[in-house]
Amino acid sequence: MLIDVLPSAGSPWMPALKNKVAVVIDVFRATSTMVTAFSNGCRAIIPVLTTEEALERRTNEPGYLLGGERRALPIEGFDVGNSPYDYVTEKVGGKTIIMTTTNGTRAIHAVAEARQVWIASFLNAGSVVDAINQYIRKNSEIDGIVIICAGSEDRFDIPDTLCAGMLVDMLGKDMESNDLGRAAQMLYNISKDRLHETLSMSEHGRLLQSIGYEKDVSYCAQPNILSITPVLEDGVVIARTEII
Amino acid sequence: MLIDVLPSAGSPWMPALKNKVAVVIDVFRATSTMVTAFSNGCRAIIPVLTTEEALERRTNEPGYLLGGERRALPIEGFDVGNSPYDYVTEKVGGKTIIMTTTNGTRAIHAVAEARQVWIASFLNAGSVVDAINQYIRKNSEIDGIVIICAGSEDRFDIPDTLCAGMLVDMLGKDMESNDLGRAAQMLYNISKDRLHETLSMSEHGRLLQSIGYEKDVSYCAQPNILSITPVLEDGVVIARTEII
Repeated sequence: MLIDVLPSAGSPWMPALKNKVAVVIDVFRATSTMVTAFSNGCRAIIPVLTTEEALERRTNEPGYLLGGERRALPIEGFDVGNSPYDYVTEKVGGKTIIMTTTNGTRAIHAVAEARQVWIASFLNAGSVVDAINQYIRKNSEIDGIVIICAGSEDRFDIPDTLCAGMLVDMLGKDMESNDLGRAAQMLYNISKDRLHETLSMSEHGRLLQSIGYEKDVSYCAQPNILSITPVLEDGVVIARTEII
Repeated sequence: MLIDVLPSAGSPWMPALKNKVAVVIDVFRATSTMVTAFSNGCRAIIPVLTTEEALERRTNEPGYLLGGERRALPIEGFDVGNSPYDYVTEKVGGKTIIMTTTNGTRAIHAVAEARQVWIASFLNAGSVVDAINQYIRKNSEIDGIVIICAGSEDRFDIPDTLCAGMLVDMLGKDMESNDLGRAAQMLYNISKDRLHETLSMSEHGRLLQSIGYEKDVSYCAQPNILSITPVLEDGVVIARTEII
């Protein structure tokens, strides 16, 4: 089975998605934050592309929260930003969140047509790999895996690529990868013992540290601390507990 | 000074090019072939985007040769393909070649607005780095370097990325790189002792070998065998001998 890794949400090349499983990665910070939100009891996350769309959807559902960022900062009038530390149980427990971020929600929309879409980050990488392996065993029509790195405003991003490399590495030796998948795996293997340092020195890591989000960088660099496997279902991200 | 590396000719993100020097890399095979052609006495290369444009330009200049490929194969009715072995002195000595390739000529056009555009490959990497360093010393308005990997039909390509990494590595420690530049440098440093093997196992390397171009793969994987520094001038690639 082939794993195709794509470098950014705006990737000019996209494989056919019909019988693929897709994985969306936005280490800094959308997917790390989503995984954290579910771990803290969030009920569902609706990813939307624009702040206007987020506000409009909330009009019909006043109990929903608004979350997200623009230029890495919270959006005025929204309930939560894009920091995992915003998504504590007291705020998000039992809630549905309408979320818009610069790269992560775009990447989710880019692969929404895949047979199954998982949300991954370093925090839950191992659980997502287990879930994909189970899903593939139960669904014989699946003919490939697409891992999309959200990237940083259409640019290649080291944190997302390293996380893609970790997934490729764990998905095992029966899989083949495209060039970016192989490169990501090589990069992961030479960086895994100093993941926090490598992520801190990335463009996005330095940006976050420069505006006071050092704690987010450290938090998002922790592999396999959460057993959460969010999936996209009819445009809504939920925390799947059982593999169908 | 900042080095921005771009992953493919169709990169959705492009920095401002006005005061930048740009480097175009298409290891398999357009830029390796161009460098070889100049080494064998070719006078000039006119990169064009389509076969139609190539044929049309030749109508006015019947002495020019037509070169290039589609799907890695020679184009019917053209004088030379995209293999460096086609560009021998007997064929290209003293000639001007109108050339169209799937990725390389597109990448040249994508950065044509830069202050100076160099054509690089493993074959001439060291000479291009020397030329860029000289150019920057003589032209103080230059505020950055853009290295564009032609990629493979809009996809990230290991051969081009490793060559970009070699350039980043040689350009030295006074330079900063974007995430892709850093990743490319890391990949180059772990692959440089088995460059031929790594290039052979890449997607494009395997494609070329599968259609009989093993020799091209081996040839293009040789670093620093030619002292040729082609540049783009008014839409025409020529072998610059003196840095202005």
